[in-house]
Amino acid sequence: MQKIISRATLGRLPLYLSYLKSIDSEYISSSAIAQDLDLGDVLVRKDLNSVCGQGKPKIGFQTKNLVKALSKALEVGKTTPAIVVGAGKLGMALLDYSGFKDYGLDIIAAFDSDESKFAELNGQKPVYSMENLNRFCRIHDVKLGIITVPDRSAQSVCDALVACGIDAIWNFSSIILSAPDRVTISNENLALSLAHLHISQNH
Amino acid sequence: MQKIISRATLGRLPLYLSYLKSIDSEYISSSAIAQDLDLGDVLVRKDLNSVCGQGKPKIGFQTKNLVKALSKALEVGKTTPAIVVGAGKLGMALLDYSGFKDYGLDIIAAFDSDESKFAELNGQKPVYSMENLNRFCRIHDVKLGIITVPDRSAQSVCDALVACGIDAIWNFSSIILSAPDRVTISNENLALSLAHLHISQNH
Repeated sequence: MQKIISRATLGRLPLYLSYLKSIDSEYISSSAIAQDLDLGDVLVRKDLNSVCGQGKPKIGFQTKNLVKALSKALEVGKTTPAIVVGAGKLGMALLDYSGFKDYGLDIIAAFDSDESKFAELNGQKPVYSMENLNRFCRIHDVKLGIITVPDRSAQSVCDALVACGIDAIWNFSSIILSAPDRVTISNENLALSLAHLHISQNH
Repeated sequence: MQKIISRATLGRLPLYLSYLKSIDSEYISSSAIAQDLDLGDVLVRKDLNSVCGQGKPKIGFQTKNLVKALSKALEVGKTTPAIVVGAGKLGMALLDYSGFKDYGLDIIAAFDSDESKFAELNGQKPVYSMENLNRFCRIHDVKLGIITVPDRSAQSVCDALVACGIDAIWNFSSIILSAPDRVTISNENLALSLAHLHISQNH
């Protein structure tokens, strides 16, 4: 039973997991969780349903099974490597950001075409030249790539990532990228997010 | 007639505007725009409807009126100031990012509690101390604030922004902020975005 977990549900899973680890009852119902976390009954039931199926009527879920299912969904203990192409300010900010670890993700290196940015310093994540991209992705089995280059280079970087076997791309450029169907692309338009916040406030 | 414009619609407005500026017919129909931009008929009609009402049957929109309405919705020619609190890598990347200009937004300064980050250099946007926040926001009539501080400081920064008269906050921390109802908060959880791309690909 593998369902697609919505973005909103995924965002609440770490909350459920830390809550479940803090209690010591053998069974727990979704309504008890909802009450303790101050969330809606239906919401919690749907969230848990999408990772662990239905609980037993009147009893609920076995706590340890729920912990196991949540850990699996969040890939706790497993680390998925990702890389970022474009070692500008945004790329370096992402490379440096520690929050990805909560979801078992680790941006392990950055790549850039600008020689002045190459660096392999102790205790810091490395920045390599684009020539190393293919070999690095194959060796580390990297399937997730992030594009933070200027718009004019975004499509060629996308092509390079696809050629390296990447199958999911997080695109921070404002270009609509074209890639084979097997590749999932998620567009992150920061300017649009701020603009939408602005107009929402003004209406 | 002021409607809320959806995020997706807002994202397409710059495209319509640059297209309309490139043609020289007096009237244009939404289906002609759809065809030229390779977008769906219904989609374009709904988009234009939300900024300019309905076109005339069989004739469509007067091009110059449509340009005017789109420019107004995108606030072309007007610049709305915003500030960022937290001059770490992410905050500085946002301060430096030029893409906000397409939507008439300008992040004009950053604020931080760490003295070593204060700087007012020629040709660069300034980083000020938190003590200057209130005066700066009042003088420049800043209503948009961005939070890029660590989670532990996010709520106190939120409180400070609210006290400065900010009414829209873009929150990059993973904390759920509490603020008065008049303040619109938009949460940007980068780790969650990447995690959701990852699980979407794996299912």
